[in-house]
Amino acid sequence: MAIPSIAAVRKTLIARPGKPFEIKDRPTADRELFDDKEEAKTSLKKDAACINDLKDKLYAEGKRALLVVLQGMDTAGKSGTIKSVFADTTPLGMEVKAFKAPSSEEMARDYLWRVHNAVPRRGHVGIFDRSHYEDVLVAKVRGFAPADAIEQRYSQINAFEKHLSENGYTIVKCMLNIGYEEQGIRLKERLVEPHKLWKFNPGDLDDRSLWPQFMQAYETAVTRCSTKHSPWYVIPADSRTRRNAMIARLVRGALEDMDLKWKDPGLDPGSYEI
Amino acid sequence: MAIPSIAAVRKTLIARPGKPFEIKDRPTADRELFDDKEEAKTSLKKDAACINDLKDKLYAEGKRALLVVLQGMDTAGKSGTIKSVFADTTPLGMEVKAFKAPSSEEMARDYLWRVHNAVPRRGHVGIFDRSHYEDVLVAKVRGFAPADAIEQRYSQINAFEKHLSENGYTIVKCMLNIGYEEQGIRLKERLVEPHKLWKFNPGDLDDRSLWPQFMQAYETAVTRCSTKHSPWYVIPADSRTRRNAMIARLVRGALEDMDLKWKDPGLDPGSYEI
Repeated sequence: MAIPSIAAVRKTLIARPGKPFEIKDRPTADRELFDDKEEAKTSLKKDAACINDLKDKLYAEGKRALLVVLQGMDTAGKSGTIKSVFADTTPLGMEVKAFKAPSSEEMARDYLWRVHNAVPRRGHVGIFDRSHYEDVLVAKVRGFAPADAIEQRYSQINAFEKHLSENGYTIVKCMLNIGYEEQGIRLKERLVEPHKLWKFNPGDLDDRSLWPQFMQAYETAVTRCSTKHSPWYVIPADSRTRRNAMIARLVRGALEDMDLKWKDPGLDPGSYEI
Repeated sequence: MAIPSIAAVRKTLIARPGKPFEIKDRPTADRELFDDKEEAKTSLKKDAACINDLKDKLYAEGKRALLVVLQGMDTAGKSGTIKSVFADTTPLGMEVKAFKAPSSEEMARDYLWRVHNAVPRRGHVGIFDRSHYEDVLVAKVRGFAPADAIEQRYSQINAFEKHLSENGYTIVKCMLNIGYEEQGIRLKERLVEPHKLWKFNPGDLDDRSLWPQFMQAYETAVTRCSTKHSPWYVIPADSRTRRNAMIARLVRGALEDMDLKWKDPGLDPGSYEI
C-alpha cells in the first residue's frame, strides 16, 4: 500500500465537528492508514524532514504560528511523539510546554491564563504536552472544579481557540488514543527498564483505575471542542511507529496549508555597498 | 590528525580568567583544532548524538540545567550553531531564547530582569541567541546607557552568573569570532540567496561600520567576565563546519562533567500491581 495522503489521514482521524464522538468507534490498534510498519517509518522520515524545512519558512515569515496540542493518558506517547515527529527539527523557533499541576500563582488566575501565556510567539511552532484540556479532563474526573464551572469551559475553550485561529494561529489537536491493555504493558516496562523508571509515577495508577471516567471525559471534550477552526484528531496510539507517522502527516499538512514562502523583505539588493 | 579531546578544545579556546584577552591573538580562521574539514564533520556528528542522549538524562534528573550563551557579530553563525550542534536534539526540554531589542516592559526594569526570566527550567538545556552581554556590547558602542552604568555591569554580570552556577546552572559562553572580511562575504550572500534575504537587515551595516568599537567592547567583556565558574570560549568562526564542531565539543563536555545518571526515583518496582 502507498503512504496515505494527508487528506486521507485527516478524513480517517478527525472527530467531525458537530457530530458526537464515541471512543468505542476508534480502535486503539487501528492499522487502516498504515498497515505496513516499514511504510510508516518511511513516511515519518520524509515528513520530519519537510516539517523542518517548513518551520524555517514559518520562522522567517514571523507572522503566524503553529500550535500542536497533544493529549492522552499516561504512556500514550506524548513525549515520544515530540521526539519523533520533530526528530529533524532543531530547537530554534520551537517551544515545548509541558503542563503540570498548576502552581499557586497559576491557581490564583483563571485556568486559561497560564495557557495563553504559553502560546508560541509568531514565527514559532509550539507544542503543548498536555494543555487546557486537562481542565475538562482530570479536573472533571477528580472534581477539581465544580461541575457547573466545568460545563462552561467547553465553550470558553472554543472561544479561546477561535480567538487564536483568527489571530494567526493554526492549531492541531491530537488525542493519543491508547488502549487500557497497552497502557498496562507500558507501565510495566517503566518498572523494569532503568532508563524508563524515572517516568514511573505511582499516581498514574490512580488515573488508570479511573479509566472509564477518563474515557467519558475525553468523549465529551472531543465532541464539544472539535470545531471547524480547531478540530480534534483521534490517533490510534497502541503502535508507536504508526502513531508518529500519522501525527507527522497532520503536522506537515497544517504547515503546508499555510502556504509559506521565503519572506521577501522588499529590499533592493543592489542598493547596498558591502 | 585525530579529533581533538574536549580538554584540548577547552584549553585552546578559553579566555583564561584573570588574563587580559586580546582579539588579535585569536585568528578567526584558525584551524589548529580541526585542520581537516571531514574530521570536523565526523566529530560534530558524534557529539550531536551524545548531546541528545545526555540531555535526556538531564531532563529525567530535573535538578540542574545547562545554559549555552552565544554571542557574535551579525552572520557569525548563532542560528547555524544551534541548528548544527543540536541537530539530533529534539525540542523536548530545550529552550531557545533569542534576545532582541528590549520591549518597553523590559526597559522598565533593570537589564538582567528579562535575562533571569529566560533562564531554562531545571532539567532543560537553554540557549541564549544573544544575551545580557548585549548590555555591555551594543549598549556600550551605541551609548544606550551611561558609561558609568555600563562600567558597573561587568561585576553585576559576574555576580549573576555566579549565582546561577551556585544554583545548579552550568554555563557555556561562546563568542563566535568572525572576521570582518568573512562577514562581508556572508552579508553579500544574504542579498543574493532568496532563502537568506529575509535575514538581511540594513541596520547590520551600521554595526559593521563600527567594527573596531565592537571588537574593543568584546575584548573588555570577555576579559572582565571570563570567570572560573563561567569562562568565555572564543571560537574561530570563519569556517562554519569547524565552528560547529568546536562548540559541540564544549557542549558535550559541559554535559559530561555533570556526571548524569538515569534518575532513580527510589521505588520498589515489585510493589505495584498493574
